[in-house]
Amino acid sequence: MNAPNVKAVSDYLLDLQDRICGALETLDQEKSFREDKWIREEGGGGRSRVMEEGDVFEKAGINFSHVHGRQLPASATAHRPELAGRSFEALGVSLVIHPRNPYVPTSHANVRFFIAEKENAEPVWWFGGGFDLTPYYGFEEDAMHWHSTARQACDPFGKSIYPRFKKWCDEYFFLKHRGEPRGIGGLFFDDFNELGFETSFAFMQSVGDHYIPAYTPIVERRKDHPYAERERDFQMYRRGRYVEFNLVYDRGTLFGLQTGGRTESILMSLPPIVKWRYDWHPAEGSPEAELYEKFLNPRDWLST
Amino acid sequence: MNAPNVKAVSDYLLDLQDRICGALETLDQEKSFREDKWIREEGGGGRSRVMEEGDVFEKAGINFSHVHGRQLPASATAHRPELAGRSFEALGVSLVIHPRNPYVPTSHANVRFFIAEKENAEPVWWFGGGFDLTPYYGFEEDAMHWHSTARQACDPFGKSIYPRFKKWCDEYFFLKHRGEPRGIGGLFFDDFNELGFETSFAFMQSVGDHYIPAYTPIVERRKDHPYAERERDFQMYRRGRYVEFNLVYDRGTLFGLQTGGRTESILMSLPPIVKWRYDWHPAEGSPEAELYEKFLNPRDWLST
Repeated sequence: MNAPNVKAVSDYLLDLQDRICGALETLDQEKSFREDKWIREEGGGGRSRVMEEGDVFEKAGINFSHVHGRQLPASATAHRPELAGRSFEALGVSLVIHPRNPYVPTSHANVRFFIAEKENAEPVWWFGGGFDLTPYYGFEEDAMHWHSTARQACDPFGKSIYPRFKKWCDEYFFLKHRGEPRGIGGLFFDDFNELGFETSFAFMQSVGDHYIPAYTPIVERRKDHPYAERERDFQMYRRGRYVEFNLVYDRGTLFGLQTGGRTESILMSLPPIVKWRYDWHPAEGSPEAELYEKFLNPRDWLST
Repeated sequence: MNAPNVKAVSDYLLDLQDRICGALETLDQEKSFREDKWIREEGGGGRSRVMEEGDVFEKAGINFSHVHGRQLPASATAHRPELAGRSFEALGVSLVIHPRNPYVPTSHANVRFFIAEKENAEPVWWFGGGFDLTPYYGFEEDAMHWHSTARQACDPFGKSIYPRFKKWCDEYFFLKHRGEPRGIGGLFFDDFNELGFETSFAFMQSVGDHYIPAYTPIVERRKDHPYAERERDFQMYRRGRYVEFNLVYDRGTLFGLQTGGRTESILMSLPPIVKWRYDWHPAEGSPEAELYEKFLNPRDWLST
């Protein structure tokens, strides 16, 4: 029972994509998702779903992809040189949601499965994924809800899982050149096979299934919060950090670009409108300064 | 006379920065440059000059930096592994100009000098640099002027220089994941020491000195060209490609971020306001389609 079952993973992922799109369409009265199926020359393809210019979601992209290739690319073997040269199969769902209202945080989630194979050797397989939240104006209540849902996703698999993958998330979604976390974190895991196939797969499903209950209550709470040009401007400025992270550091983005993935599907994660301003800093004591002080410092959201 | 003279290079670069800032301030009636001097912990520092929200220049950054360190970073030794581990000194002027009017192209220029040293070995030194132009709406007249000025900068150093560095520019400023050049190119060179120090330095100066006569006539010709929301929107969309290039591929940007350079000075190259739209394509026969067809294909602008 513990041999990897790619078909089961694929079925789960396609259904997850449907469920997440459905949940977001329920929240947005204006727009629905457009679907594009695509095929990759070297092997495999995907199903991209994108919503633009909704009333709640200014841009939302939810991508399923299943690709295979003759050689794992550099981004996938940098930390595991023993896998260099193996053929691979990779499937996952990846999403980024950019809401219009600056009081609604941007969110990202990803669940994925890899197998790397070579002749005369056992296949090496692993799961990865997680979800993280990037507020523009922070609310402690939202951060606690997000992290407590993340912990609920993990706890059935062992009490050490949440703190371990919460910490990994803080470390991963960090902009070194800014000395700044991308947001308030959540979960991040990779190279995960320690529970055997069935239970590792169940863990990945638990993470995937907890994204909707983690995010949608926050969207509902904040989507009608009044805002003006100032808040919108700060949102556009902060979205610049999102672009910097995704293009400079993000492993999934680099993996996609290096493996000749479909560029428009990979870069659907980029925000619809972004500003860069030279050496800008929020005024002391402002709500914008509060984001940096209270939310952009890794902390334990569930200690109290 | 052919020993490298760092002081002479530094004097030239500081003066070049002054002259370029002066020329751009003459064109912009609204704003002037703000200067920030900065010091880098490991050694060295710089002088950043930035203009924002001018009437002609929406954002213009002209940076002088002179840094040294104990070890060349990965971005500098990827193609020259024999230099790994050497200490280095690097100085240069780098600039990116983002005009407000979509009919005025974005331009970039850079001239730089490196020395890599280790005990009991001759220092290895080289020059690098060039300039390239990124139009939103192309004009053949402008492209020909830009390239003919580039050729004038090169010709005194040998007839093969312009074609060689024009080709290198087309190859370097290329977005692999889009299959698209960044713009219409110009000059790019690196690892340049083949003429000895004095003449190689003179070549770098010629490139630096030809930037103003290459760019300012184009700005003057197009800065009052009428435009509306449509052209502005296309400009913001195309600026996304500029961000993608700089954060994913640009050697100078990665070098700066990896060596702990001043982030705000490095990323002053990013446009003030940018849009990403999913899978957008210009309408057939539109002026936007003309950019892709006639200008975003490397061609010989001086053949006729």
